[in-house]
Amino acid sequence: MTYAKRISGLKSSAIREILKITERPGIISFAGGLPAPELFPLKEVATAVQRLFSKYGPSVLQYSLTEGLGRLREKISRMLDPNTGRIGVGNIIITQGSQQGLDLVAKLYLDEGDVVFTENPSYLGALQSFRLFQAEVRPVPSDENGIRTDSLIKALQDERPAFIYLMPNFQNPTGISLSLERRRQLVEIVKERDLVVVEDDPYGALRFSGEKLPSLFELGGAGNFIYLSSFSKTIAPGLRVAYVAAEEEVIGKLAVLKQGTDLQTNTLGQYLVSEYLESGDYREHIGLLRKTYAYRRDCMLSAMERHFPETVTWNRPEGGMFLWVKLPDGSDAAELLPRCLERNVAFVPGREFFPDGSGENTIRLNFSNADPENIEEGIGRMGEVMKPMSG
Amino acid sequence: MTYAKRISGLKSSAIREILKITERPGIISFAGGLPAPELFPLKEVATAVQRLFSKYGPSVLQYSLTEGLGRLREKISRMLDPNTGRIGVGNIIITQGSQQGLDLVAKLYLDEGDVVFTENPSYLGALQSFRLFQAEVRPVPSDENGIRTDSLIKALQDERPAFIYLMPNFQNPTGISLSLERRRQLVEIVKERDLVVVEDDPYGALRFSGEKLPSLFELGGAGNFIYLSSFSKTIAPGLRVAYVAAEEEVIGKLAVLKQGTDLQTNTLGQYLVSEYLESGDYREHIGLLRKTYAYRRDCMLSAMERHFPETVTWNRPEGGMFLWVKLPDGSDAAELLPRCLERNVAFVPGREFFPDGSGENTIRLNFSNADPENIEEGIGRMGEVMKPMSG
Repeated sequence: MTYAKRISGLKSSAIREILKITERPGIISFAGGLPAPELFPLKEVATAVQRLFSKYGPSVLQYSLTEGLGRLREKISRMLDPNTGRIGVGNIIITQGSQQGLDLVAKLYLDEGDVVFTENPSYLGALQSFRLFQAEVRPVPSDENGIRTDSLIKALQDERPAFIYLMPNFQNPTGISLSLERRRQLVEIVKERDLVVVEDDPYGALRFSGEKLPSLFELGGAGNFIYLSSFSKTIAPGLRVAYVAAEEEVIGKLAVLKQGTDLQTNTLGQYLVSEYLESGDYREHIGLLRKTYAYRRDCMLSAMERHFPETVTWNRPEGGMFLWVKLPDGSDAAELLPRCLERNVAFVPGREFFPDGSGENTIRLNFSNADPENIEEGIGRMGEVMKPMSG
Repeated sequence: MTYAKRISGLKSSAIREILKITERPGIISFAGGLPAPELFPLKEVATAVQRLFSKYGPSVLQYSLTEGLGRLREKISRMLDPNTGRIGVGNIIITQGSQQGLDLVAKLYLDEGDVVFTENPSYLGALQSFRLFQAEVRPVPSDENGIRTDSLIKALQDERPAFIYLMPNFQNPTGISLSLERRRQLVEIVKERDLVVVEDDPYGALRFSGEKLPSLFELGGAGNFIYLSSFSKTIAPGLRVAYVAAEEEVIGKLAVLKQGTDLQTNTLGQYLVSEYLESGDYREHIGLLRKTYAYRRDCMLSAMERHFPETVTWNRPEGGMFLWVKLPDGSDAAELLPRCLERNVAFVPGREFFPDGSGENTIRLNFSNADPENIEEGIGRMGEVMKPMSG
C-alpha cells in the first residue's frame, strides 16, 4: 500500500487536536474559531425549511448546479457590487465553506514545488491546503498593519509566486487588518506585475468600530484578485455555504474542478442562506453579532488587564473573532498549554500559524464563543498559570 | 496567469452540459442520474429539523468533527457490520457526497503518472477525479458480469495500479452487477497481490429482484478494500451525505486530507440523515423506492420493446437507476442526441464513459427520474428518431 507523495509528513492540524480536547464538558475554550452558538437563527431556519418546501418543493433536496443556486449567486453578486453591475452571477461560485474555496484555488493554480506568498503568521487551514498540493509557502514579514509591502517587493525580486494569499480583515490568527494605505500599495504592486492574489475574507462583516475598508477585490478588480467569503461566521458554519468571486474564466475552471471534487454544495444549505438573505433578518442579525462580539472582546481585554502579568501584551482588533497575545521573549506558549488544560481552559499556541516556525511566545485567543462569565473565569485561570512570568 | 498543469485539457463533463439543457421546461430527460424527487421525504425532513433543534440545540448548525457526526458514523458501522463488531466508528468517515470520497481517495493514493484500473465503461465522475490528480486510467475489459478477472490478471502482469476502481452493484453507466463468482475471484486476486480496491456502491440498496450479493469489502475485509456509499440515492442528494469505510489508518489519513479540503461535511445534513435512520422510516422508504424504480424500469423496457427498432438491444438490470442500450455496430449515439433534443428528449451517449474511447453505439438511460407516462412518451420519441436504423 503506497500513499501519494503528498502524504509523507502529513499530520493532523494541532488545532483540530486541541479542539477535540475542548469537547470535554466543563472546559472553557478560547482555542477554536467558533461563533457563538446561542446566536444561531434556529427559529428562522426551522420556519424557512417549511417555507422552502412549500415554495420550491423537492428541488430543495435534489441535485443542483455545480456553480451553485442561481438566486443565491445573484444575491451575492449584488452584495459585492450593488452599483456598477460589473460583478454578475457568472463571477460567483458557491463553495462548501471557504476551506473548499482554498482547496479549489490551490487545485487550479498549484503544481508541485510552486511558491505561495503568505502573511507571517497566516491562517493554518490555508497553509494545509496549499501544502497538500505540494506548494512551498513563503511567509512575508507582517506587522500591526498587515503584510509589509516593502518586504513583499523585496521577496518578488527573488521569486514569482503562483499566488499571494492574504486575509486583510481581522486576520486569523492575529485579528490584524491591512491598512488602507497598504491595500492601495498592494494593488499597485500586484497590477504592475500581473500577479494573482487570493483574498480570504470570512470576518469582514464583523466590524465593531472604525471605517469599513474596501477589499482588494474592490480596489483592484476581478482580473488579479480572487475573493473568498462565507456565511459560516454570519449565519452558521454547519450549513457550509461560502463563495468565491473572480473573473468568469476563473469561475468556469473552478466549477469544472468542483465537479470532480464534490459535484456541488449541499442544496438545502444554499436555499436556507438564500432565504435568510431575502428575509431581511440578515442585516439585523449581523448587528446583533457585532454588538455581542464587541462586548466579549471588551470583556476579554478588561480581564487580561486585571489578570495577566505586566510583561504580557496584546492587541485590540476592531472586529472579527480573535485577538493576539505576546508573552515575554523567550517564553514558550506551548509549555503553558498543558498547564492551562489542567485547569480546564484552552487556547492555541501562535507558533502553529507561522510558516517560518517563529512565534513561540504568541497565543491566539478567540473571544466570540465563550460568554462573558466564562471569559472572566478562563482569563483568570490563564493569568494564574502565567504568574511566574510576572517577575 | 498560469494555471497548474492538471488544468491543461480540463473540460466540463459532457454530462453536466447535457444536464444544463435538460433544465429546459418540458424536456423528458433520461440523461441525468437523478432520483425521483416526488419520493423525497419532505415532511419527515421538515419535522426532523424542528425535533433536532429542540433535542440538540444550536450544535445542529455549529462546526463539528472532520470525521463526521459520531452518532451517524456509529449507525453506519452497524449497518455495514451488524454482527461481528469488526467495523466500528473509527472505520467510517462522512463525506460530502460519494464524489468527495473519490476525490479524497485520489488525493491519498495518486501521484502524477500513477495508474488506476477501472471497468470499461466506468463512472465518469470517478474518471474526472482521478484525472485531476494526473493519474492514467487503464480500462479493463468488462462484460455482462462486470470486470473480466482473466483480463485483470493479464493487465496486472504489466502494471501495478495505485488502486482498482469498481462499482459492483448496478453500475453507472451500464446497470451491470459483478457476479458472485467474479467477486470471489477478484478478492483472491487482490489479496494475493496486496492491492487496493476502491469499491463504489451508491446503488446497492436499490435491488429490485435477485439475491443481495456481498460487497467486496465484506468478502475481502478492510485491509485491501475501501468502501464508498451514499444517502444521495436512498434519502436525498441535496443533503450531500455519504461515507467511506476502510481501515482505521486510512480513515485517519482521509480525515487529515478532508481538514484541508472542506473542514467537514455540512452538520445539518448529517443530523438529518442520522435522525431519519433512527426514525425507522428509512427501511420503509427504501421499499417504496425499490417498488417505484422497478416499475419504471419495467415501463421503460416495455416501451423500448414496442418503440425501438429490432436492431437495437438492451439489458435488464436487477436494480439501480440505469439501463444500457446498444445501437447496431457502426451507429453513433452522439449523432442521435441533437435529433432527440429537438424532440425534447435527452439521454447520455455511452462513449463518455469509456476510457478507451470506444462505445460509440451505446446509450445510458436513466429510468428513476421520469414518471411512467413520460417514460412512454420519451421512449416513443427516441424510437421515431431511431427509425432509419430499423432496416
